[in-house]
Amino acid sequence: MWTLYHFPLCAFSRSIRLALGEYAWEVTLDEQRPWQVSRDFLEVNPAGYVPVLKGPSELRICGAYAISEYLADTSGRPGRGGRRENTLFPGKAEARAEVRRLVDWFHRKFDEEAGRCILEEKLYQRYPEARRTPDPELIRLGRENLRYHLSYVSYLAHHRDWLAGERMSFADLAAAAHLSVMDYLEEVPWEKYPEAKEWYARVKSRPSFRPLLGDRLTVLAPPAHYADLDF
Amino acid sequence: MWTLYHFPLCAFSRSIRLALGEYAWEVTLDEQRPWQVSRDFLEVNPAGYVPVLKGPSELRICGAYAISEYLADTSGRPGRGGRRENTLFPGKAEARAEVRRLVDWFHRKFDEEAGRCILEEKLYQRYPEARRTPDPELIRLGRENLRYHLSYVSYLAHHRDWLAGERMSFADLAAAAHLSVMDYLEEVPWEKYPEAKEWYARVKSRPSFRPLLGDRLTVLAPPAHYADLDF
Repeated sequence: MWTLYHFPLCAFSRSIRLALGEYAWEVTLDEQRPWQVSRDFLEVNPAGYVPVLKGPSELRICGAYAISEYLADTSGRPGRGGRRENTLFPGKAEARAEVRRLVDWFHRKFDEEAGRCILEEKLYQRYPEARRTPDPELIRLGRENLRYHLSYVSYLAHHRDWLAGERMSFADLAAAAHLSVMDYLEEVPWEKYPEAKEWYARVKSRPSFRPLLGDRLTVLAPPAHYADLDF
Repeated sequence: MWTLYHFPLCAFSRSIRLALGEYAWEVTLDEQRPWQVSRDFLEVNPAGYVPVLKGPSELRICGAYAISEYLADTSGRPGRGGRRENTLFPGKAEARAEVRRLVDWFHRKFDEEAGRCILEEKLYQRYPEARRTPDPELIRLGRENLRYHLSYVSYLAHHRDWLAGERMSFADLAAAAHLSVMDYLEEVPWEKYPEAKEWYARVKSRPSFRPLLGDRLTVLAPPAHYADLDF
């Protein structure tokens, strides 16, 4: 049996929960709090962060990068030219590079410029042991950057079927994971970005998304539209 | 002909220059300054960062993640089970996951906790258009974290032939790229970490490393030992 160490509002963990759902992998979830890293968890991942996929015997796959590629390496079926087909990194090397460019965009750029500041200021403040002095400038900047990222998603959704091209890929899941955290925190002005909204509605209606829509933190409930497929 | 947009002391760019050297890919280098992103460069990579590998016609591979995987996808030779052999992500899926865990360690954790603070405080200050108010607390913290990361490299080098296992991989190149930037800035107390030093000396003596040892910024020269293989 496989276990995924995660935190419900960690976008990296969410991207992997979505990928696991798409590949139809059954896992048990083990919740960790990113600001309270236990000794036991450091044994699992010395880097101290989620997600971690724990497999049979001593196997530990640490971090969204390693897990997303591992799932692609071991799922789908061997195809032509040493490539695996039916994975979340579809197509030829050039197409896969475009998927990875966008995964990097969300897992690195979006996270640093928008996601992390908003999450820390809006959520972590609600946990006494994680609380820091709030920084209104940080959340203002995060919100401003979020709008720029939403424009970019709209631009991509306008020009393509899915964010990286003709097929759904891990780029869609990574982007949707980050935006779903912002949506839980009621930070996404969807009505201003109709193309991003239409794309998000498509990802949100996939069966792999359902478990995320059921997440509820005791310290903060999501807005009513969060779990609504017709938001 | 291929072009690599890079900045000489960008660790992400360096990791790709090393990988290109290992795969024996000839590229032309085009230097960019990370703090001065031109409109022309934003056309190349809307994310605004280096490295970017520009190929024939419209092909642009953006970011160290996409480039490192693209090079592996298109180099080596097709092997058993849909796997490519003789790449910088060697072995089975589990072994490759370990390579990627460590790449993530350096490209994300090391960069955030040590590399970026030290680079900005020590180098960027020397460019009038990039200068900010120096923050002595930031560089102190970066140096403290650098020691922790050096201990981890020593630990890995003690237990394994190469950082991720029996074979040299992109994990070694990513780690050496980040440490080589710190070394240029004379920030690495090698004598306190003999196992890390022995491993670094092995990576440093590879032909792929030679171009990096020749880098010289006009605003700041490296220490004498920087290019010395018997440092």
